[in-house]
Amino acid sequence: MGKKDKQFVEKVTAMEEDFAQWYTDVVKQADLVDYASVRGSMIIRPYGYAIWENIRDVLDKKIKDTGHQNMYFPLFIPESLLQKEKDHIEGFAPEVAWVTHGGSEELQERLVVRPTSEVLFAEHYSKIIHSYRDLPKLYNQWSNVVRWEKTTRPFLRSLEFLWQEGHTCHATEQDAAEETRKMLDVYATVCEDFLAIPVIKGRKTEKEKFAGANYTLTIESLMHDGKALQTGTSHHLGTGFAEAFDITYSDENGNQQYVHQTSWGITTRLIGALIMVHGDNRGLVVPPRVAPTQVMIVPIAQHKEGVLERAYELKGQVAEFARVDIDASDKMPGWKFNEYEMKGIPLRLEVGPKDIEKNQVVLVRRDTGEKSFVAMDELSTIIPALLEDIQQTLYDRALAHREEKTTNVTTFAEFKQALEQNPGFVEAMWCEDKACEENIKEETGATSRCIPFEQENRAGHCVCCGKEATQLVYWAKAY
Amino acid sequence: MGKKDKQFVEKVTAMEEDFAQWYTDVVKQADLVDYASVRGSMIIRPYGYAIWENIRDVLDKKIKDTGHQNMYFPLFIPESLLQKEKDHIEGFAPEVAWVTHGGSEELQERLVVRPTSEVLFAEHYSKIIHSYRDLPKLYNQWSNVVRWEKTTRPFLRSLEFLWQEGHTCHATEQDAAEETRKMLDVYATVCEDFLAIPVIKGRKTEKEKFAGANYTLTIESLMHDGKALQTGTSHHLGTGFAEAFDITYSDENGNQQYVHQTSWGITTRLIGALIMVHGDNRGLVVPPRVAPTQVMIVPIAQHKEGVLERAYELKGQVAEFARVDIDASDKMPGWKFNEYEMKGIPLRLEVGPKDIEKNQVVLVRRDTGEKSFVAMDELSTIIPALLEDIQQTLYDRALAHREEKTTNVTTFAEFKQALEQNPGFVEAMWCEDKACEENIKEETGATSRCIPFEQENRAGHCVCCGKEATQLVYWAKAY
Ligand SMILES: [Zn+2]
Ligand SMILES: [Zn+2]
Repeated sequence: MGKKDKQFVEKVTAMEEDFAQWYTDVVKQADLVDYASVRGSMIIRPYGYAIWENIRDVLDKKIKDTGHQNMYFPLFIPESLLQKEKDHIEGFAPEVAWVTHGGSEELQERLVVRPTSEVLFAEHYSKIIHSYRDLPKLYNQWSNVVRWEKTTRPFLRSLEFLWQEGHTCHATEQDAAEETRKMLDVYATVCEDFLAIPVIKGRKTEKEKFAGANYTLTIESLMHDGKALQTGTSHHLGTGFAEAFDITYSDENGNQQYVHQTSWGITTRLIGALIMVHGDNRGLVVPPRVAPTQVMIVPIAQHKEGVLERAYELKGQVAEFARVDIDASDKMPGWKFNEYEMKGIPLRLEVGPKDIEKNQVVLVRRDTGEKSFVAMDELSTIIPALLEDIQQTLYDRALAHREEKTTNVTTFAEFKQALEQNPGFVEAMWCEDKACEENIKEETGATSRCIPFEQENRAGHCVCCGKEATQLVYWAKAY
Repeated sequence: MGKKDKQFVEKVTAMEEDFAQWYTDVVKQADLVDYASVRGSMIIRPYGYAIWENIRDVLDKKIKDTGHQNMYFPLFIPESLLQKEKDHIEGFAPEVAWVTHGGSEELQERLVVRPTSEVLFAEHYSKIIHSYRDLPKLYNQWSNVVRWEKTTRPFLRSLEFLWQEGHTCHATEQDAAEETRKMLDVYATVCEDFLAIPVIKGRKTEKEKFAGANYTLTIESLMHDGKALQTGTSHHLGTGFAEAFDITYSDENGNQQYVHQTSWGITTRLIGALIMVHGDNRGLVVPPRVAPTQVMIVPIAQHKEGVLERAYELKGQVAEFARVDIDASDKMPGWKFNEYEMKGIPLRLEVGPKDIEKNQVVLVRRDTGEKSFVAMDELSTIIPALLEDIQQTLYDRALAHREEKTTNVTTFAEFKQALEQNPGFVEAMWCEDKACEENIKEETGATSRCIPFEQENRAGHCVCCGKEATQLVYWAKAY
């Protein structure tokens, strides 16, 4: 490693030393965000936003393909509207921003900057749904929301974030249950197939469910440091909002019925997950399928005759099958190598005078650092194959990490030991008593992440109280 | 016209009777918006939002193709930050929403919900720009903004609207001037080539320019009722924000220089323009290039054997070259005809038992009502040609309307007469004195819309004061 390289790499704290600092360094050095003058707010820089656009486009297509339509609801919610559903207002009131003045006038009623839009959708649904023929209603919104968090971190927890929120109405509880599960599966596909992040699908406990929901389904992922991150949630709202907002329909027999609702969302948090699942001490690693740039061309000895011309020709060639860019600036190749490693671009393509002589290029994988010499006329087969291989390698690596960091325990002593010696998921039986859940959190710092759909069929005893238990639960310290 | 048809059509007030009511009726009946519980806020319904998505996608591509990158800035602006540029705060302070509390705590400093983001971009630019090598910076943002308007109308003037705001920094005034003009031209292309709305390009007067700008370029369009609508603006900000926020760079000689900035935006107002330029007494008319559905298939006598199957086959066939949908609900064909005319879908395709026998379909144009019988195996050539023809016809019609409604005058008496007898644009010479501009507004209700780039080379006298004048100005009553 040359001196220049070393200096550059040293800008990022090693993750083994201080994971939180490593995260902050990568977020800044990879040029994903900058800080704004309102505490806890972030500016999403072009590179970070381009990753978000790719995630959004993939998910938006799936949302539409499953029959949903996009809408746009107002940013402001009158206080009285938010208060209509009791659990909901209790859950959100402590963390909302209040608008009290418009221009120079004090408002007669305070407005909430939406922390989520259940009540706005509910009010609208109560107006537009009359008959069973109007069901289901399958709407989604892409928007910004605000939550007045005390401690914040870019992407993971910020005053404002970007997300989509789906809100649907169905004739029966069963229809709503199927929708709740269907959208969780869509989220799982986006995470696993595009972000290369393995997820565990399951249900939240009563304590951890969404304020106002019957139940919440979740996908949970494990970060490098052994902490869990909730990567998406899908809520079965039952008839709670329908009762509060009088959303009814007349069924085929002319009887008035409440609709059954769902809501589901993913946020810019996914970028935080991407960083903490794939990143390393050289910076970010972006899975090819969501990478704004999949191949970065770095010309070598570009002042020599013919090099830049050939490099630009190659760019045109590669653009046919991959998202490609070129850095023809007068910075040193070593600087460029580090810069695009920091940004996590999946493949680097080097081309210099000697390569041109031999009609070849050098390809360097970001995930493994592996270098290969490839004939120029083979790029159209080799590059797509390499990108697919990187995508799969990232996924496999993350899955192996999660499995290595998952410990199955039967006693509370083992539980504590696992969290200390091999931080990650702890699988343990639970009696479904909230007291045990709270006790575990207090004693270990771990929260229940989910009751996985895939329950191994083993009877047992609650890891906390020893009573008979039938539910296997994933526990972890979490973001 | 059958009885059912008539009843349906009567839901929309005739535009000759009451244009404002016609607009409100169309917006609601074509299912573009619904009202929300905060005064002046709108819910954009799926059909309205799909039109916006199409406009956004067309423009987003052009913004990227011209070298700009998307970012995302925070929703909230600290009061002190907004106050840094004096003209800017004076222009916007009366119409902003204020956040004063977060959770249960009163904030130490009030926050403004962004009415526009010049100051946020400026603060960021002051941190990231150091050298001439960092220039230009070409950023854009898609977001929601809030302006506390007293009187509101869906799309035209609402508390919150969606838009994009471009913000750029350049080394020289000339570079900024070129950018300002380039983006105005991009807007003009989107309006004319996609929305089929002819525009007049020009410069705003000092009185009408953006708060904080050196000058503002604008595109202006004429609505059915003879009122003008500003369809897009592009501002040369000069060094005003650069001086207030200390955005400097060292030039090639190492001297510190202020950057020269631009900002430019278009909003969901464009949907209002689309309604008021192309709509008629049967409802909305959407130009094919931005229509979410270009062809709506209505099966006739669909209970008869083979009709629905054939209709769905046709849908698959047409989907190869147009955005197509089918209404196979059990509603009457007459209801469907009216519904999709109301929604302004460019082409209706009818297919019934007799058509199937003859291997033909019926195509009905929304713009002219013209009906044609087309062989099924010719659809792939006829439909795209018809859609192009509708697009062109809408543009030509709008242009003819504008020309018919534009009066060239030399005296103030003619000015007033023109506005009364042929409401629309009034072309008149102006001495560039603000007093005349204000006087014209007071006496006629017309404001200066723009000083067109295409100045006919005629010397003359100010239409108001009679002094010598060299500027031709477009005047109109405006939204
Ligand atoms: Zn227990
Ligand atoms: Zn004058």
